[in-house]
Amino acid sequence: MTEVERGYVCAPWELRWQGLSVEQLQRTESTFALSNGHIGMRGTLEEAEPRGLPGTYLNGFYEEHELPYAEAGYGYPEAGQTVVNVSDGKIIRLLVEDEPLDMRYGHATAHHRVLDFRSGTLRRETDWTSPTGRRVRVRTERLVSFTQRAVAAIRYEVEPLDGDVQLVAQSDMLTNEPIESDAADPRVAAALESPLAGEYAKAEDYRAVLVHRTKRSGLRMAAAMDHQIETTDGLRTDIEVEENLARLTIAVDVPTNGKLRITKYLAYGWSAQRSIPALRAQVDAALAGALQTGWDGMLAEQREFLDRFWDTADIELDGDPGLQQAIRFALFHVLQAGARGESRAIPSKGLTGPGYDGHAFWDTESFVLQVLTYTLPDTARDALRWRHSTLDKARDRARQLGRRGAAFPWRTIDGAECSAYWPAGTAAFHVNADIADALVRYLNATNDTEFERQYGTELLLETARLWISLGHHDPHGGFRIDGVTGPDEYTAVVDNNVYTNLMAQRNLRAAADSCDRHPDIAELFGVDHIETAGWREAARKMRVPYDQMLEVHPQSERFTEHAKWDFAATPARNYPLLLHYPYFDLYRKQVVKQADLVLAMHLRGDVFSLEQKKRNFSYYERLTVRDSSLSAGTQAVLAAECGHLDLAYDYLAEAALTDLADLHNNVRNGLHIAALAGSWLATVAGFGGMRDHDGELAFQPRLPAALDRIAFRMCFRDSRFVVEIRPELTTYRLLSGKPFTIKHYGNPVTVCEEPTTLPLPELEPMERPAQPAGRGPTRRRGRARR
Amino acid sequence: MTEVERGYVCAPWELRWQGLSVEQLQRTESTFALSNGHIGMRGTLEEAEPRGLPGTYLNGFYEEHELPYAEAGYGYPEAGQTVVNVSDGKIIRLLVEDEPLDMRYGHATAHHRVLDFRSGTLRRETDWTSPTGRRVRVRTERLVSFTQRAVAAIRYEVEPLDGDVQLVAQSDMLTNEPIESDAADPRVAAALESPLAGEYAKAEDYRAVLVHRTKRSGLRMAAAMDHQIETTDGLRTDIEVEENLARLTIAVDVPTNGKLRITKYLAYGWSAQRSIPALRAQVDAALAGALQTGWDGMLAEQREFLDRFWDTADIELDGDPGLQQAIRFALFHVLQAGARGESRAIPSKGLTGPGYDGHAFWDTESFVLQVLTYTLPDTARDALRWRHSTLDKARDRARQLGRRGAAFPWRTIDGAECSAYWPAGTAAFHVNADIADALVRYLNATNDTEFERQYGTELLLETARLWISLGHHDPHGGFRIDGVTGPDEYTAVVDNNVYTNLMAQRNLRAAADSCDRHPDIAELFGVDHIETAGWREAARKMRVPYDQMLEVHPQSERFTEHAKWDFAATPARNYPLLLHYPYFDLYRKQVVKQADLVLAMHLRGDVFSLEQKKRNFSYYERLTVRDSSLSAGTQAVLAAECGHLDLAYDYLAEAALTDLADLHNNVRNGLHIAALAGSWLATVAGFGGMRDHDGELAFQPRLPAALDRIAFRMCFRDSRFVVEIRPELTTYRLLSGKPFTIKHYGNPVTVCEEPTTLPLPELEPMERPAQPAGRGPTRRRGRARR
Repeated sequence: MTEVERGYVCAPWELRWQGLSVEQLQRTESTFALSNGHIGMRGTLEEAEPRGLPGTYLNGFYEEHELPYAEAGYGYPEAGQTVVNVSDGKIIRLLVEDEPLDMRYGHATAHHRVLDFRSGTLRRETDWTSPTGRRVRVRTERLVSFTQRAVAAIRYEVEPLDGDVQLVAQSDMLTNEPIESDAADPRVAAALESPLAGEYAKAEDYRAVLVHRTKRSGLRMAAAMDHQIETTDGLRTDIEVEENLARLTIAVDVPTNGKLRITKYLAYGWSAQRSIPALRAQVDAALAGALQTGWDGMLAEQREFLDRFWDTADIELDGDPGLQQAIRFALFHVLQAGARGESRAIPSKGLTGPGYDGHAFWDTESFVLQVLTYTLPDTARDALRWRHSTLDKARDRARQLGRRGAAFPWRTIDGAECSAYWPAGTAAFHVNADIADALVRYLNATNDTEFERQYGTELLLETARLWISLGHHDPHGGFRIDGVTGPDEYTAVVDNNVYTNLMAQRNLRAAADSCDRHPDIAELFGVDHIETAGWREAARKMRVPYDQMLEVHPQSERFTEHAKWDFAATPARNYPLLLHYPYFDLYRKQVVKQADLVLAMHLRGDVFSLEQKKRNFSYYERLTVRDSSLSAGTQAVLAAECGHLDLAYDYLAEAALTDLADLHNNVRNGLHIAALAGSWLATVAGFGGMRDHDGELAFQPRLPAALDRIAFRMCFRDSRFVVEIRPELTTYRLLSGKPFTIKHYGNPVTVCEEPTTLPLPELEPMERPAQPAGRGPTRRRGRARR
Repeated sequence: MTEVERGYVCAPWELRWQGLSVEQLQRTESTFALSNGHIGMRGTLEEAEPRGLPGTYLNGFYEEHELPYAEAGYGYPEAGQTVVNVSDGKIIRLLVEDEPLDMRYGHATAHHRVLDFRSGTLRRETDWTSPTGRRVRVRTERLVSFTQRAVAAIRYEVEPLDGDVQLVAQSDMLTNEPIESDAADPRVAAALESPLAGEYAKAEDYRAVLVHRTKRSGLRMAAAMDHQIETTDGLRTDIEVEENLARLTIAVDVPTNGKLRITKYLAYGWSAQRSIPALRAQVDAALAGALQTGWDGMLAEQREFLDRFWDTADIELDGDPGLQQAIRFALFHVLQAGARGESRAIPSKGLTGPGYDGHAFWDTESFVLQVLTYTLPDTARDALRWRHSTLDKARDRARQLGRRGAAFPWRTIDGAECSAYWPAGTAAFHVNADIADALVRYLNATNDTEFERQYGTELLLETARLWISLGHHDPHGGFRIDGVTGPDEYTAVVDNNVYTNLMAQRNLRAAADSCDRHPDIAELFGVDHIETAGWREAARKMRVPYDQMLEVHPQSERFTEHAKWDFAATPARNYPLLLHYPYFDLYRKQVVKQADLVLAMHLRGDVFSLEQKKRNFSYYERLTVRDSSLSAGTQAVLAAECGHLDLAYDYLAEAALTDLADLHNNVRNGLHIAALAGSWLATVAGFGGMRDHDGELAFQPRLPAALDRIAFRMCFRDSRFVVEIRPELTTYRLLSGKPFTIKHYGNPVTVCEEPTTLPLPELEPMERPAQPAGRGPTRRRGRARR
């Protein structure tokens, strides 16, 4: 197969890879990962090899390892947590007349794989000629069920392409697969080498179950498989089991025009507390349910679930098929990351790879939950409930740091702080306001008062207490928050980070409002009027530094007085900068890894004038290198608001293509879920101009020249609606639910079933802002596409 | 022995410990350590046990170990260095009629040890009754020779106290002694467990030699011993050797009134390059020299060396015998740390213990070299030559940090950065200006032009280049140095630290001056007039922040706007704060670990008015907790200048008693050499008011009420002189060399053999500044003494 025949193929509703490239397998293993937020399976081939990195993950299931310090400090966490590759049930090996099917040998005359965004399955078709010349066609399809949370299933079909053939299939469930760890720290690598100890194994007929436990964190997991086999007569099967392997062997002679079809059902469960029999029963029951539903039933449920999702969440981008594909790919993976996580975190890579040790960060609340709140609000609720479930750990952490209230972790799997780098792990307090902001957004978008009473008020008041105990009223009458790290990781431990202060301000006010609304709950936590008055006072006095001379907001106190990074002297190979320059030098200079002040202008756009936004945006564009994948989406939002539509379009494309184009050269470790969420933000908050300050939806739609039309769907308080942007007009239309009011360029508009079409104001032409040398986004050419 | 009989005894010229306390052994093992700056021997008992921590060190001899990071970063050093306990030659075990002499068994009727500041020896006398009732007297005396750098010697005498007795003495040289490591990091502990691999061992007659090599750093050491034995007839000896042990066994029957006297000579050498035969020859030669000199000759040389030292360096404090003892103890140990280090660093603990891994820090240049420059200037020269010898490593480090010139390490043994904590290891750049300052002081005090040409100009110009590449001219016309860590370790990574900026200013000017003086050398390093003009311009524009509202200098930009530490809510058990509070919280508040702005007011007192000094001193007194031993001496200096003589006196006592009173509860790990140097500074720069700005010696003497008289000796440009302060008069008198001019309260005075007596201005009574609750220095009562 030649080079041009190999690679992604453009299509509106699927991601297709044509041809096989062994070197590129890791790249597609992440993009082809299937997940329902509870189980994740990387897109490795069924025959297990060749492969980049295998990976089957259960959300929240991790191994612990010691965090080493050459110079330890007070409050440094002692234990790290790392996501574990659990028993791999997706393996089905095939022998064709004694020759193992292995794409590195023999000859594949055809091969493609398709991730289908509407069926929610990964399909594969391979025509293979064995080294001895036997030809077979293998078709597989697999899914991780959105409806049956504990279940995955694989349909595996082989047909001979010329003449009768003897086939042997081995359907495996393999634990403690040897993997090549990327971990720089040998302790992490050691923790992940055979992390699971066998506790129970049984196999009978076509069914097997394995129960294991992690050696240090003591979490228990069970995996079970069952099979249906359809073929000609003369089938011989054998099932065997040992501590780390269960295997069903299927031997059959298949005649021309005959077929071997295996349907494999997998069930997974884990628990920190449940016994071996209980967990075994749980996976057995899940298998029974899956068998009852059957393969066709599972496919139907999956499609129905996705139809509902796309009905509420789809984005159409007319005029750029590649971008159309990329944004559906992005939405599909955001959905997969969050759909059925339920009482667990949404990790930064979803369940698509082992990157960042499987940790969740602030990106979940600040980026991913914005999307989910307006597309699948129950999942946003579940993610916030997970945060609430870790409140005791956050309260303990606050105490350890000498603060009141709750201090949520910078990075974690189970809620305990896992950051070994204190300028992040103790100082990046903004995560707490980010959680509060996501909560307020969810409450406004759903009117879920029950959730507010059960979880919300407590989350708000405990984070408000943190801010009060973190800042202080200075002699000049301002409320300062000193020594914290904002979103930009190239600046750390600074005073009055604008983003942090403004988000804390919102947090404080929201907490006071929520306590006023629910005085009984406030009382339960000892909040009185004096305390809420203190929150409002601190919010009122919150310091927001401003550089009068330059007429811009310094990202943090005195930022604009620092030396500018010497971009001209920085060669392209020295990005990302953090791998080539010491922290002290990055921190003390004007160089921005990712939107920080610009993110503040998005989420707290209510406190900046448009003129300020324009000046600030232009100022920070020149300093922002986007060494973080979190940045492009936010820059798109502000570029659009400031009238730089072409630039916004380029940033939208960058966000959407983060993983398809492997822009950060690390897609092998998993997808950048928040960056993908950023492409939704670029579209909806960028070109749609959607803002949700104070619980009110407002739009300022704009269409970039490269596109003919943008249409995006959202839900808001049980209503679904679509916004359709054309060159000079925008149409709002209710899809289901009750009519409600939004703002269009500041004017109230009722969204109802009858479409409302409104004109768009004209934009004056603006000069495109400059980026650091070599760090501008790729100019995307609309319409012209690979 | 009862409690009151145990402890230090006050005496002017010695440190005497009466009685034995097993629990207190580690404390006295450090204070009784002997060293010449090349070899160090802790004050363990000859019989090796009971002991706290054994320790024999060779300056610069270390083992390497991996520095672990849970989250690594660019520029973090990969290897750490740790001082190694080398072959222990001070062991002489004794069996009295088959009973091992062990102070934990039997009964000691008398026991004392004396560190003699004039003889430079450690003496011990023990009357011991064995469990079976045999009585002996053991007298030992040992020295590490100041004159024969590679040699130590021990005189060991036993006499029966009632009746004939059979004695067996085992004189050992023991390698890889098992020690209990304090290291929190298991990798360091592992590196130190048996760090030495045997390479050669030989014994014959009374002489033995062992050659070993460190396993990872690959440094080779040789240790040799020889003996002279005086006793009655009937002596039997046996010598044996194995990889890690050489032993001379001496068996003899000693009659009443008889005596066994052993004189043990030890020689040490190490090298990174020399072969086994070469090192063996080196220690054999050193032993031959020692035997040629003989015990009495060694004693005489030692005393002569010390007589010369005290003639130049002694301090007399009349009216406080305890303080008199403490300050001579301090001077003695400063001498021991620096005397014969020659081409090696002076570690922060000298060679008295394994604390701080045996690393040298900036304290050497900023505190210790001030003392040595004016008392034993050749040792200051050698220490600066060591820094120069590490210039290539410092240039490499500067390159790694993206800077020009040279960046010397925060902590090191061989010149490579060993700090695993980047806010110190990359950001505490002031060490470079501290080195330059010490160099300029040495040059001014000696007129050593040859040293300047060979080493000084290069050191100055390379550090000047660092500053230029570290700071920048800001739009307001100032030269800023952002993102650095000053001396105060409770504030890190700040902008325009006053101390750093002022010291950098001096560094820049001194470099320009030196290049002007030696244009040929400047040219050699590519320095032209444009470059030196740039240095002078940066120095002229150097930013020194000032708080107009509070009328004090903020330690660094905006420091005075930060919240004050809540001292009232901080219980005494929570000191030192760094063990009980997270860095982020210490860094962002007004709390000072150690003199920083106050140190700037000492070393750069030329740029502060007296009124500013008074206001600043009072302001920072309220914030300074002295969790570092480096602080008290400097606070004494400024307290005295600001007229708080009683407070200065208390700080002087604190500095001088740092280790005798074990104020930081860690004397077991070694002495605080810079704190001890601080007691000299408190006396000479504090009560003497000595300043040396611009190479001119100036005095403003003052006597605290508690003392009747202070007399201190110094040398300056080949002249020795004494300053004698009495309540209302001060006398200056030349002891040797040519007359020269100083200033007395601003007025020029010629110091000549004829004493010049001048009056002291009266001080107006001042209110004693306050310290944080519970953190004031202990009030010292003069005259009344234990």
